[in-house]
Amino acid sequence: MRNFNEHNITEAVLARLDASRSSRVKEISGALVRHLHAFVREVRPTQDEWQQAIAFLTRTGQVCSDTRQEFILLSDALGVSMLVDAINHEFPGGATETTVLGPFYVADAPEVSAGATIGKQEDGPTMLIEGRVLDTAGSPISGAIVDIWHADADGYYDVQKSPTAYSGRGRVKTDAQGNFWLWGTLPAAYPIPDDGPVGEMLGLQGRHPYRPAHVHFMIAAEGCETLVTHLFLASSDYLDSDVVFGVKDSLIEPVIEVSPGKTPYGAVVETSVPAMRREFILAPRTRPRE
Amino acid sequence: MRNFNEHNITEAVLARLDASRSSRVKEISGALVRHLHAFVREVRPTQDEWQQAIAFLTRTGQVCSDTRQEFILLSDALGVSMLVDAINHEFPGGATETTVLGPFYVADAPEVSAGATIGKQEDGPTMLIEGRVLDTAGSPISGAIVDIWHADADGYYDVQKSPTAYSGRGRVKTDAQGNFWLWGTLPAAYPIPDDGPVGEMLGLQGRHPYRPAHVHFMIAAEGCETLVTHLFLASSDYLDSDVVFGVKDSLIEPVIEVSPGKTPYGAVVETSVPAMRREFILAPRTRPRE
Repeated sequence: MRNFNEHNITEAVLARLDASRSSRVKEISGALVRHLHAFVREVRPTQDEWQQAIAFLTRTGQVCSDTRQEFILLSDALGVSMLVDAINHEFPGGATETTVLGPFYVADAPEVSAGATIGKQEDGPTMLIEGRVLDTAGSPISGAIVDIWHADADGYYDVQKSPTAYSGRGRVKTDAQGNFWLWGTLPAAYPIPDDGPVGEMLGLQGRHPYRPAHVHFMIAAEGCETLVTHLFLASSDYLDSDVVFGVKDSLIEPVIEVSPGKTPYGAVVETSVPAMRREFILAPRTRPRE
Repeated sequence: MRNFNEHNITEAVLARLDASRSSRVKEISGALVRHLHAFVREVRPTQDEWQQAIAFLTRTGQVCSDTRQEFILLSDALGVSMLVDAINHEFPGGATETTVLGPFYVADAPEVSAGATIGKQEDGPTMLIEGRVLDTAGSPISGAIVDIWHADADGYYDVQKSPTAYSGRGRVKTDAQGNFWLWGTLPAAYPIPDDGPVGEMLGLQGRHPYRPAHVHFMIAAEGCETLVTHLFLASSDYLDSDVVFGVKDSLIEPVIEVSPGKTPYGAVVETSVPAMRREFILAPRTRPRE
């Protein structure tokens, strides 16, 4: 096992995987080696280009922090996140479609009650976010945890402004009728953070860094697949050129104007206010929770 | 451009590359997207496996420092570095073969004179490193810069012990006859740093982390391709299982015992000493320096 060249090295590396600790490790490692070597054989990088690739990956790792995940951005911008999402969410008809998690999810968003205000006044105009959670049979799911996060009216998430002062982010439980409602902020379209390696890549590729305005939802309930999705604002720019390829027609909702009174989802509205509303349908769980 | 799924997303991402700043950016980006998506389609990662991959890449970037390059280690351990090396060094017959740069090269190694001692006494037994640099016509090259670095008798490089106190590392110029000589240390076989993500990967793949004992050379001269190579000690373990796939038969040299006197390369030996010697043949430069 020596004297490796362009023609025999791939088989040599694959042969080293025979003692892998599990068949899945061997499968993933082998596929990685084959596809990575095929990529290198196709583009035939110079040593200098290889060094640039090493430096790019290194910078991508080093810019990551508790509140910035540049490798997720890279995966998003190359369409990999949406591909992984598609592969994992071939759900029965009727369930709400999924889209990318994105890099701004935080696991410990504040738990809030129905009707809570999650958007600070300085974040921009108030928007009602309300809806219902149902199973595929149409029955409401009570006690579902609806984790909501969105950018502010300038297009920034809380964690981009301060790593600890959460805003535009909260977890609310559905009531006995499967309903939830919160006061958030009318979010703006925004560029993904483009002052790092992913921004450099987009610049070289001649691509804009923008995402259409949207609200993130992660909805978890007993016996159901956890739903990770967005609602996109129908009025937003960039619906046809989302930098992370996340838009689906079924996830576009108009911002409506809600008049004073009680809404179908239990929200109490005192003055006319913009709102996004949606009935989310969760797929039944088909495999062990990850 | 929306509603992407497993079957249409690759074409969608490729279409976004049309405004790339150069044809090379478009070529590399497009190939990356196609091969990366093919890898994902083949292994069909769960969301949890995708998260693990993101975390692995992030840790790999974050463990990098001025004296540790984990992404080069990853490239080495997956055979990518040797593949890139092979693609870039299809030199005319007769030129010394190349192998990987490795992660322990530093650009500013001390400039030393012929006969200098680059290995500290505590690094282990002294070894003479000597040779000659020639062109493919057999003419000696004077003034070539021979950059040499090697591990100590415990298998550690200087920069692993201290980021600033160089040892076992130096740059010497060839004399009018193309000769050079230095006092180094008899190096040991060693594991690549395996306390980070690459070590985890090797563990999962059931692979040992060892490289056979070797001395690194980077030799630069006017009008020639810079030669990046090693000499491997013929007596070393792991010649057939180098973790980075770097061994070539033509780069294996015995450690010889040199008697007191003057060697053919101008070294002045006072007591019998182990030595590695080699005549290096540089290929003529065929393209602009990178």
